Amino acid sequence: MRIGILGSGLMGAKLGTLFARAGHEVVFSYARSEQKLKRLARAAGGSARAGTPREAAQDADAVLLAVHWLRFDDVLKQAGDLSGKVVVTCSMPMNEDNTELVVAHTSSGAEELAKRIPKARLVAAFGTVPSEVFFDVYEARRKAKRPSLLYCGDDRRGKEVAAGLIRDVGFDPVDAGPLRIARYTEPFTMLVAQLAYESQGGPELAYRFERFGK
Amino acid sequence: MRIGILGSGLMGAKLGTLFARAGHEVVFSYARSEQKLKRLARAAGGSARAGTPREAAQDADAVLLAVHWLRFDDVLKQAGDLSGKVVVTCSMPMNEDNTELVVAHTSSGAEELAKRIPKARLVAAFGTVPSEVFFDVYEARRKAKRPSLLYCGDDRRGKEVAAGLIRDVGFDPVDAGPLRIARYTEPFTMLVAQLAYESQGGPELAYRFERFGK
Repeated sequence: MRIGILGSGLMGAKLGTLFARAGHEVVFSYARSEQKLKRLARAAGGSARAGTPREAAQDADAVLLAVHWLRFDDVLKQAGDLSGKVVVTCSMPMNEDNTELVVAHTSSGAEELAKRIPKARLVAAFGTVPSEVFFDVYEARRKAKRPSLLYCGDDRRGKEVAAGLIRDVGFDPVDAGPLRIARYTEPFTMLVAQLAYESQGGPELAYRFERFGK
Repeated sequence: MRIGILGSGLMGAKLGTLFARAGHEVVFSYARSEQKLKRLARAAGGSARAGTPREAAQDADAVLLAVHWLRFDDVLKQAGDLSGKVVVTCSMPMNEDNTELVVAHTSSGAEELAKRIPKARLVAAFGTVPSEVFFDVYEARRKAKRPSLLYCGDDRRGKEVAAGLIRDVGFDPVDAGPLRIARYTEPFTMLVAQLAYESQGGPELAYRFERFGK
């Protein structure tokens, strides 16, 4: 698949690199500098390349939206029309200091985003683990018990694509239901961040849902 | 320890039973009928017994608060003074239909409760898994990898007690930090409920946080 990365920061850079390693054609866009994008693309190998948000989005089979909440307007404007596109967002609706959620329980960042791009096949995914764990999970992907990764959305096709990408990077995709569930997965992300960054043990944290009985 | 159960519904009944099996002296209180409480105490065995909320609370080393949000006022009035008590709450701030959280991101049910009982050693715990999984986890407690159970609070002594109880029922306690983190653990509970009750596979669901790397 062709995957456009909108926002090549911590999350976007790592996921894009892993998508490339998994054999996808990746375009990195929207970082602090053109140089950083080129460096990322070179390091990712394969057919990965740097581009503008519009180049990343236009021919993509899936777009990863990994920018800060306050950058949405800008990056969406630069990316152009996303109608019909599979858009996977891992962005949390944080304030400028990254200390508080700015969208309350009655909505979520993902739902607000859906209002902005109502025709896109939006899926919320990847945001629920720290970027620090991605490479470790990928390396351990042959193990019997993969960590879970939650995703949610209202579009079936979008969700199939997201689930495939989640598998590609070494996780076990867990369908959390419709997009409105992002109002729970986003606070869950805050919780994971608390455990990753405010507790002993380091940020290489993932989670697994396990069924008991039967 | 002596443990008072305030609210002997799904959560309170099961946890109280397991606390009794783990060797604690349990008083069940606040169910639909006196009969149900007596039946619970008999089934739990050991020195478990039925009592009023006041009897459950007064000599307890720890109190489990497991009532519906709309019952807090009533059960707290009946329980009497909780100053200095270890209070573990697993109650979510839900509306009457159990469909929506009634306390928003800027606070949590646990924090609101703390304002009501400012001198109690309040810990939020046990609410993050469905009651259906408790017995299975307890039965599997000798296994190498126990599921996690999150808890949070501002009182060190209260948290030590809660962590011990979590261990007693077969989980690996995970300290999520101060009580304000309940504003994330509570939506997380909504997420777990979604996975447990709205997905394939049944409600016997638990979770494990795992560290990678190093």
